[in-house]
Amino acid sequence: MHGVLVKFNLLKKKVTVKESYSDGIASLLTQIYEESLSCLDDFSKANLKSEVPNKEYFAFENTNTNKISRPINKSLYDPDLKEWKRLMTAIEKKQVTDIPTDALQRTLYSMAISFCASIDMLKKGDKATPGAFFGKFVAFFFASQLGVQPVTHVNLMNYDDPKVSTKLPTDLIFDMGNKKQKFHVPVKTSSRERAIMLWAHQRLVDGAYGVERFMGTPVLLAETKGGSEARDVTEICLADQWRVYQLYIARLKRIYYLDLPEPYAELNNEFPPICVKPFAEFFYEWKDLMPA
Amino acid sequence: MHGVLVKFNLLKKKVTVKESYSDGIASLLTQIYEESLSCLDDFSKANLKSEVPNKEYFAFENTNTNKISRPINKSLYDPDLKEWKRLMTAIEKKQVTDIPTDALQRTLYSMAISFCASIDMLKKGDKATPGAFFGKFVAFFFASQLGVQPVTHVNLMNYDDPKVSTKLPTDLIFDMGNKKQKFHVPVKTSSRERAIMLWAHQRLVDGAYGVERFMGTPVLLAETKGGSEARDVTEICLADQWRVYQLYIARLKRIYYLDLPEPYAELNNEFPPICVKPFAEFFYEWKDLMPA
Repeated sequence: MHGVLVKFNLLKKKVTVKESYSDGIASLLTQIYEESLSCLDDFSKANLKSEVPNKEYFAFENTNTNKISRPINKSLYDPDLKEWKRLMTAIEKKQVTDIPTDALQRTLYSMAISFCASIDMLKKGDKATPGAFFGKFVAFFFASQLGVQPVTHVNLMNYDDPKVSTKLPTDLIFDMGNKKQKFHVPVKTSSRERAIMLWAHQRLVDGAYGVERFMGTPVLLAETKGGSEARDVTEICLADQWRVYQLYIARLKRIYYLDLPEPYAELNNEFPPICVKPFAEFFYEWKDLMPA
Repeated sequence: MHGVLVKFNLLKKKVTVKESYSDGIASLLTQIYEESLSCLDDFSKANLKSEVPNKEYFAFENTNTNKISRPINKSLYDPDLKEWKRLMTAIEKKQVTDIPTDALQRTLYSMAISFCASIDMLKKGDKATPGAFFGKFVAFFFASQLGVQPVTHVNLMNYDDPKVSTKLPTDLIFDMGNKKQKFHVPVKTSSRERAIMLWAHQRLVDGAYGVERFMGTPVLLAETKGGSEARDVTEICLADQWRVYQLYIARLKRIYYLDLPEPYAELNNEFPPICVKPFAEFFYEWKDLMPA
């Protein structure tokens, strides 16, 4: 088994949701990044024909089998371990906002996409491992900033028997304390035709505890899709549908991306506002999102 | 290309949603059923270890490659072309309710699962083809009974420019006429962890045109999952979560199954009622579902 899988299994098995952030996990993420880059070193890079305006992509390629990884954004990919370690130190010292947004976004993207691309090359059609990794990755950074560990359920009141509460499984929930607004953070590597689930889960927690008692701030990796035969890359965006979800299902406060699709970034300029941003901006703005 | 795929491609390419029901399609479905049974004749049957109480399953098996099909419910599977043709005649003559419910359910199940199992054996990891087929299958029967062809969108009013209406893509919509309640019919081969999408789509049409203006009556094939290595079969049911969706997102009027999971059938006995039934019952009760 490749080192990157060995290290990921450690992360998966030993780290529960309630321990999403710790120095030990920072160190494990660093090792996973090192193993991912070492894995990708064995492959060459293939240019992809980009159907996405203003974005260029490549993929890692196994020239023996013609297998390629998921598309990687050229302007965001800068696999620099020094930058990653600088980020880990800044997180420990609570100085992340000293790093410029663009550099922070590249560092976050490069680490996450390196792991996902490694799995693409090592395994066949494995979507579960990149998804599970990305959940841990986002939980780590959210917990590091908010200063609380997440849970993945809310208790629902049972009117018939108040002594028995029902657990509703949820995405990541960060409880900022008594009488404070809380964060509700769905995590997905892409949303595509399943995007409606982000709003539907927000509606559930709205229904259980009141509208926007939990602030919905999903984090997504990308919406790109690579064609392995045509060697092209497209970006699947359904902005019109997102507008309808934001009007009729629930209000999401932010949607963060590691590779932000331009058609979604534009949604903030019309009604209903849907504020879609690079994930790096979360580190700078999360305090301002909460009511004083 | 196997005959079953040739015939399915005819159905897929020539039959638009707006022509979901016709004698020609009945004849094409019959040919697809014949080809499916001829395809499955090439394979043997393997018993599966059933983890589902009170249900026994088998799978078709390629003994050279060890490949098996999806699980097939033994008590529902009765691949009898004569019964199918009897159903097609009954539909043409509007006499479906002369067929006993249990026999009708077996005929519907046997046809749909034969096609899906054929694709399992002929292709690798192809979920799109069974899904596309099942959509056509359900649309055919709904349209044959309701007497109207479906559409797959609703027009949303645009307050800023009333001359321009936005099309919201939806599942099957059957318009029963002026001032009549309409049907909203999502179709899926299984719901699993995506079940929330059924309620979320209902909420969208509720939001656009008023609560229950469109009656939500999804149709699903089964919730079983076969383990190809262990040769076992489990049924994935999330009844507690369904209850929360029915309370907090929208009200579905009926949920129809071809292989009805027992834990869902029991939901009708508690609050909030979720009426989950064999698909065959739709043919007998749809007139009673609509307000007089």
